[in-house]
Amino acid sequence: MIALIMAGGTGTRFWPVSRKSKPKQFLKIAGDKSMIQLTVERLQGAVEDKYIYIVTAQSQAALVREHLPQLPAENIIIEPFGMNTAPCIGLSLAYLYDRISHDESIVVLPADHVIRDTGQFLESLKQAEQPAAEGYLVTFGIVPEYPATGYGYIEAGKKYSDDTFHVKQFKEKPDIETATGFLKQGNFYWNSGMFYWKFDTIYKAFEEHMPQISALLEEIRFIWKHQNIQAGIADVYVKMPRTPIDIGIMEKAEKRAVIPVDYGWSDVGSWKALADISPTDENGNFIGKKNLVIDAKNNYIKTDKFISLIGVDNLVVIETDDAILISSKERSEDVKKVVDTLTAEKQDNLL
Amino acid sequence: MIALIMAGGTGTRFWPVSRKSKPKQFLKIAGDKSMIQLTVERLQGAVEDKYIYIVTAQSQAALVREHLPQLPAENIIIEPFGMNTAPCIGLSLAYLYDRISHDESIVVLPADHVIRDTGQFLESLKQAEQPAAEGYLVTFGIVPEYPATGYGYIEAGKKYSDDTFHVKQFKEKPDIETATGFLKQGNFYWNSGMFYWKFDTIYKAFEEHMPQISALLEEIRFIWKHQNIQAGIADVYVKMPRTPIDIGIMEKAEKRAVIPVDYGWSDVGSWKALADISPTDENGNFIGKKNLVIDAKNNYIKTDKFISLIGVDNLVVIETDDAILISSKERSEDVKKVVDTLTAEKQDNLL
Repeated sequence: MIALIMAGGTGTRFWPVSRKSKPKQFLKIAGDKSMIQLTVERLQGAVEDKYIYIVTAQSQAALVREHLPQLPAENIIIEPFGMNTAPCIGLSLAYLYDRISHDESIVVLPADHVIRDTGQFLESLKQAEQPAAEGYLVTFGIVPEYPATGYGYIEAGKKYSDDTFHVKQFKEKPDIETATGFLKQGNFYWNSGMFYWKFDTIYKAFEEHMPQISALLEEIRFIWKHQNIQAGIADVYVKMPRTPIDIGIMEKAEKRAVIPVDYGWSDVGSWKALADISPTDENGNFIGKKNLVIDAKNNYIKTDKFISLIGVDNLVVIETDDAILISSKERSEDVKKVVDTLTAEKQDNLL
Repeated sequence: MIALIMAGGTGTRFWPVSRKSKPKQFLKIAGDKSMIQLTVERLQGAVEDKYIYIVTAQSQAALVREHLPQLPAENIIIEPFGMNTAPCIGLSLAYLYDRISHDESIVVLPADHVIRDTGQFLESLKQAEQPAAEGYLVTFGIVPEYPATGYGYIEAGKKYSDDTFHVKQFKEKPDIETATGFLKQGNFYWNSGMFYWKFDTIYKAFEEHMPQISALLEEIRFIWKHQNIQAGIADVYVKMPRTPIDIGIMEKAEKRAVIPVDYGWSDVGSWKALADISPTDENGNFIGKKNLVIDAKNNYIKTDKFISLIGVDNLVVIETDDAILISSKERSEDVKKVVDTLTAEKQDNLL
């Protein structure tokens, strides 16, 4: 099995900790290792290091090497710039084209998700082998914990096997009523953005459903093979449509399967989401050791300084060398607006 | 006129900015000068520098000299250690005994109060001249803005003159019902802790109402005069009762007057009190220039860093080199508990 880890995100959701030069996947926000390190570690015993590939942006390649020195240098696939998941996966397939057997299975994983139960995660990869071998594009559907409106959903249809279903359809992010209905029906799962497929299956799916990308991938393969220059591919890559693979291929393909999983997954999309999965003390506070708290509950605090909280609840407080964020937990996703504004104002020192 | 400024407070209310080594009166929290500098500045044109005396703790003498280099060195009266206002004022009188005419008037002022309208303040000192000349102990009663439970009150009795009243009685800090009643009656004022009296009047009042202190003051005068060593007075000073002058003398004396004043006074007893008198922006936030605020109102923020607030209201946020305080405004007085705990835990680096 090959693992392809997508690590090109620019990460504005964890400002002021995440910066242009240090996006989420390189932060130690979900443990004592960075998220990309945890993602690779999770594959131990299932995928050898030499079969783990990372696709990342040019600007992050050095960071990837720094965080994952154990991987062969040639396993880092470099996007000239961030596009979306269809071009990114397509580019990776072009890179792998002459390096692996086309009969090989590939698991595609984002570098910045949390999965608590590694055992169950690895088990789900085994479950995917059979449908993938039969030419299915396999997805992993998260058993929903609440009627989330921030995720797409996968509607499971008929059984493929005891623990795997055919995909009936993909659903875009729903409104709250629709999401509540999904949960009542019981056969809807969050779209995790993780995939499992044979090289052959997905490569042919590109040819069939995204022929424009497919043609450009041939050009890129030609450049790599005969000119051996990375710079040359940028002009080709930029021509691709910036389409997510869910829309470009998954929604259109015929043989699709979904494996429902419930292994403590989170895409950790906001400070609140991180707070929700972080260990807290008896008052629900996530806070450093140097603290003094009076009547304060359910706060998420990141600072190396001594901190005192008095009579405040449900805050996110993040201090870095040059900035402080203080947000209500519920509004912490709006940090994106902060980054947008700083970007518009060209306050590069804060980005 | 002599001014005696009491500057011995240890200041735990503005932690983490105020520290043992830097109490409130030395902080620039109410302007671009320290509170003690503003207190001296307020007397300009009314009292010459050479007639302004500062009584302060040994540990703060150097800071006083640093903040007020224009005052003669001998105008700094040093308490061996902090006691309360009766011993402190008594000690100052002993110090002044051989230095000024006993017919001289003295205005006694705390070093850490805010008074917005300097003109009215100076006017009130003039009003105090006549009753003081007639042997009255004159107090300044703040026209109350709300039924405060954190201040003592002065009940005004019969008129002494157009703008001055005899004091009927002093009232300790009331409960909210009592305070509301005071405001309805209209002849109650907040006890500001500022006084105006002739040297002779107050010295004799000590003899009459606090004979124990009075006798010890004679001893101290003897030590200063004949032994000229500061160290020797500590053993005497420590024997004094730790009594506020309001209780020790003002409540007992017969000739007392109160001048109602309404010149934008605040004792700035908490971060909230400071927030209340600080200039804010259109969202009610007091915040540095380097900020980005989304739906956040009425916050009081002190940091040199770039700060972003999202969806938070009525917070006090104070950042120093080694500590951060985040408190609801209403609870900001509880910072005293933080300091108490740090003291009990001997966390001297934070005190």
